[in-house]
Amino acid sequence: MKIGFIGLGRMGTGMARNLLHAGHEVTVYNRTREKAEALASDGARAADSPAAVARGAEAVMTMLADDAALRHVVYGEHGLAAGLERDAVHISCSTISTALSRELAAEHGKRGQGYLSSPVFGRPDAAAAKKLVVVVAGPAEAAAKFHPLFDAIGRQTTVVGTEGWQANAVKLCGNFMIASMIEAFGEAYAAMRKGGIDPHLFLEAISGLFASPVYANYGRIIADEQFDPAGFALKLGYKDARLVLETAQELAAPMPLASMNRDHLMQAMAQGQQDLDWSSLARVAARNAGI
Amino acid sequence: MKIGFIGLGRMGTGMARNLLHAGHEVTVYNRTREKAEALASDGARAADSPAAVARGAEAVMTMLADDAALRHVVYGEHGLAAGLERDAVHISCSTISTALSRELAAEHGKRGQGYLSSPVFGRPDAAAAKKLVVVVAGPAEAAAKFHPLFDAIGRQTTVVGTEGWQANAVKLCGNFMIASMIEAFGEAYAAMRKGGIDPHLFLEAISGLFASPVYANYGRIIADEQFDPAGFALKLGYKDARLVLETAQELAAPMPLASMNRDHLMQAMAQGQQDLDWSSLARVAARNAGI
Amino acid sequence: MKIGFIGLGRMGTGMARNLLHAGHEVTVYNRTREKAEALASDGARAADSPAAVARGAEAVMTMLADDAALRHVVYGEHGLAAGLERDAVHISCSTISTALSRELAAEHGKRGQGYLSSPVFGRPDAAAAKKLVVVVAGPAEAAAKFHPLFDAIGRQTTVVGTEGWQANAVKLCGNFMIASMIEAFGEAYAAMRKGGIDPHLFLEAISGLFASPVYANYGRIIADEQFDPAGFALKLGYKDARLVLETAQELAAPMPLASMNRDHLMQAMAQGQQDLDWSSLARVAARNAGI
Amino acid sequence: MKIGFIGLGRMGTGMARNLLHAGHEVTVYNRTREKAEALASDGARAADSPAAVARGAEAVMTMLADDAALRHVVYGEHGLAAGLERDAVHISCSTISTALSRELAAEHGKRGQGYLSSPVFGRPDAAAAKKLVVVVAGPAEAAAKFHPLFDAIGRQTTVVGTEGWQANAVKLCGNFMIASMIEAFGEAYAAMRKGGIDPHLFLEAISGLFASPVYANYGRIIADEQFDPAGFALKLGYKDARLVLETAQELAAPMPLASMNRDHLMQAMAQGQQDLDWSSLARVAARNAGI
Repeated sequence: MKIGFIGLGRMGTGMARNLLHAGHEVTVYNRTREKAEALASDGARAADSPAAVARGAEAVMTMLADDAALRHVVYGEHGLAAGLERDAVHISCSTISTALSRELAAEHGKRGQGYLSSPVFGRPDAAAAKKLVVVVAGPAEAAAKFHPLFDAIGRQTTVVGTEGWQANAVKLCGNFMIASMIEAFGEAYAAMRKGGIDPHLFLEAISGLFASPVYANYGRIIADEQFDPAGFALKLGYKDARLVLETAQELAAPMPLASMNRDHLMQAMAQGQQDLDWSSLARVAARNAGI
Repeated sequence: MKIGFIGLGRMGTGMARNLLHAGHEVTVYNRTREKAEALASDGARAADSPAAVARGAEAVMTMLADDAALRHVVYGEHGLAAGLERDAVHISCSTISTALSRELAAEHGKRGQGYLSSPVFGRPDAAAAKKLVVVVAGPAEAAAKFHPLFDAIGRQTTVVGTEGWQANAVKLCGNFMIASMIEAFGEAYAAMRKGGIDPHLFLEAISGLFASPVYANYGRIIADEQFDPAGFALKLGYKDARLVLETAQELAAPMPLASMNRDHLMQAMAQGQQDLDWSSLARVAARNAGI
Repeated sequence: MKIGFIGLGRMGTGMARNLLHAGHEVTVYNRTREKAEALASDGARAADSPAAVARGAEAVMTMLADDAALRHVVYGEHGLAAGLERDAVHISCSTISTALSRELAAEHGKRGQGYLSSPVFGRPDAAAAKKLVVVVAGPAEAAAKFHPLFDAIGRQTTVVGTEGWQANAVKLCGNFMIASMIEAFGEAYAAMRKGGIDPHLFLEAISGLFASPVYANYGRIIADEQFDPAGFALKLGYKDARLVLETAQELAAPMPLASMNRDHLMQAMAQGQQDLDWSSLARVAARNAGI
Repeated sequence: MKIGFIGLGRMGTGMARNLLHAGHEVTVYNRTREKAEALASDGARAADSPAAVARGAEAVMTMLADDAALRHVVYGEHGLAAGLERDAVHISCSTISTALSRELAAEHGKRGQGYLSSPVFGRPDAAAAKKLVVVVAGPAEAAAKFHPLFDAIGRQTTVVGTEGWQANAVKLCGNFMIASMIEAFGEAYAAMRKGGIDPHLFLEAISGLFASPVYANYGRIIADEQFDPAGFALKLGYKDARLVLETAQELAAPMPLASMNRDHLMQAMAQGQQDLDWSSLARVAARNAGI
């Protein structure tokens, strides 16, 4: 397919490359043009603006840091809303608020453009290795038509609903599941350490139980306190913790554990951890225990 | 080895059978004698009391429901404390309080008897299939000597410390990790359902992420609301949630998520769910969301 | 002084009347004109728009339901921003977000207009009886100049800072203190009732302790379950609970009890209590205890 | 009446003196005899043991630090259980667990002795000034007969039920109300301070609202951070926070705010505040906000 791709950060670069390797014709745009040109050897064509990327494309995928960045790409000068062809589809892969996702569906609809939401689970190495878990929501026809794109970037695609924001709700609740696991590790490790038990031994037992690479990986990072450099910065995890609560409010579904995660991430922010890995949330429990 | 085994419930029966299959000479005791006799075909000898089980045994394993049951077996008439040989070892596999574990170490010590704590992770099917995860703590020499017994009942043994109660702390914190996962599932599913998203689709995405049989299994039970019959009754999960908080108090390590789990399990108790599976904790979040 | 007053709900009517009684020349505006005309006998002049109210006035006080209503009055057609004289001051008494308060200070400033924030504590009967507690923040000169207006509507005025939003932060945190008291009453009463103790007797003891009319009043309403008609609707209390958390986020000050209040108010919303008095928050604890 | 009084700490001394001033014949006992003799000038007779105090007395009041101290006085050598006359009544004023209160009612009952529970609200100065709030529970006849004793020590007596433990539940829930207020102050002050608002100004507004001496007093202590010397030590507040949760468990009434109070008090313990005033709980919120 002839598609566009906007946002070549650590995640986006891997995703765009896998789309190219799958044989798609990809025009890319990034705020700093170097990253776009770096993909030329993989066959990408660099464009000068979101609107230029969209010219002639059946779909444009966006992978940006947050609501503000995506808003700028869509509504800014030479933006995607202006450039996207009639009947072409904006496929948003960013972890954004459900509110913005709803708004984008409406705004693109007004312009005769389509909108799919397809946030992804996985870190940059998974993006590079085509091992993302892709969550899709939006009109069924569009979801089916562009399924090959999702196959090209991930190892699993789940279509969760016909309204785009539903995929964002799933993504935010997924991050909530991970944050809850980190909180639980933090509290358990703090108790272990005050009891003279090596957290690595606790982790060995727990890994035997859960048999999950996510538990093994985060459990090790937290036991080793390897929070720097950050795989996923705490300030971004804090942003997502706020977003899931906004979604909970929209749905009138109380999520007290999500509130706790948000409060503890805010505590970590207030105590200077914004640029550490978000698993350093576990330090809050340690500090609260006097460690 | 010549050993005793007390407590032939759904867990204990599988464990005793695997000890027999590994070639150990096992004398068993159960409050209702039928269960003891049922193991005769596997080679077990049934005894009339905890004290009788202990006669001539190098070690006696106990697998009982709670502190009260274990206290009765140890301190009751013809109890284990009275019957255990000098230098023989009581190996406690039950999920009990760290306080009782400390007390047992001291009491057996006064009598010249040894004490190891070796609680296990796994449900009855894992006990039958020799797939338990065994957590051991106690004097290093004894832990090494009886390692073959742990190998006989599980797929993994982790020695976490030289004081018996430390293994109980690990076990209770492990159950806390599971309860926290259930709480997170409950909140996420409630949000999903209020958003018109099938929890099974959320689970599909999340299972892709965590790749853990524990997530897949609990996630499915909760999505299907298959809480009856209980694999592990909510009232027992509530008991463990209280025990982990007692341990947290002993260690002066605040565990606010453990408090939340306990409060929500108490809510489930107050609303009549004591005999359902403890994963029905998830119903609390649903009800709180007006579902 | 020659002033304007916008927003003649149950609170605003009492406040405007007391300003008239104190001898000020007051022009009033209300969306439904009847309420404005009802004050004619007290000497008020009714105007047709926020802008018309502002003509020739040294200050215009606003007392509206929420951010949206105030935004409409300020920025809408014939709005206050357009009509307020240069050097005249907008005195905002509404319980609004600190974010909007900051924005208004900036927007009025751009137009050469002043801005004070002066939210009030007290129910409609206190507004009528000139017994409000007034919290003021903004430029010191303006706060001093208009002090007579605050004296005219309340029994106590506290100036808390030189930036308008600070008064809103105080007001929101004050409502948080009340919500926390309601939560505490709810949990204590639930325990009392499950223990066969009449909540009224608990209240008698507690009132002896706190000697506060607020405790006596709310404690009685909750013990009697007199939640309808609402003195202050739960949905408004829920709004304020969300606003205080937004302020907490702006300030990077975790407020876990505010999170709990918000979650329990959301639970009450999800269970249909939006139009009951916000003290019906106490029902959540009762229901969670199986009552 | 001819009565005994055991426990002459800062609270008990004031209470015993007021009983003497009301004309009662009081024999006293204290572990350190000096405190007993100090009351001789007020007319007290000192005895050598709890049992000796009880000889010939219609009632014996006890005012001790905790469950352990009261257990020792009742069950220890020359204890109250042994010495109390048949049909005489043990009136327990200490803040103890509901479990111990139930046990004492049963144990005294077996011996043909009566039992009333009458914990008090108020600090030592209130005890001295006869301004305690007395909460009474137990058999109605005994509660009526000894009402003059309660009148002699307090300004208000509330009879809350016919089972002694009910008064202890009221007392523990009352302390929970105070702890919740302290937590709310702590969170609000932390937000104020991060917003550049003097907590004393917030307190002025809040005091205008609540008009409660308890708010004024605690609010000032916390704003001034005058936590040393302690009026009521944090370790004792922590003990009571644990006891109210035990009662909540007995009653199957979830008290999530009580859990939060306990966790934050535990955090304060872990961070070295055990001997400061319990209002230093507010420091936890400040520290969590990075102050």
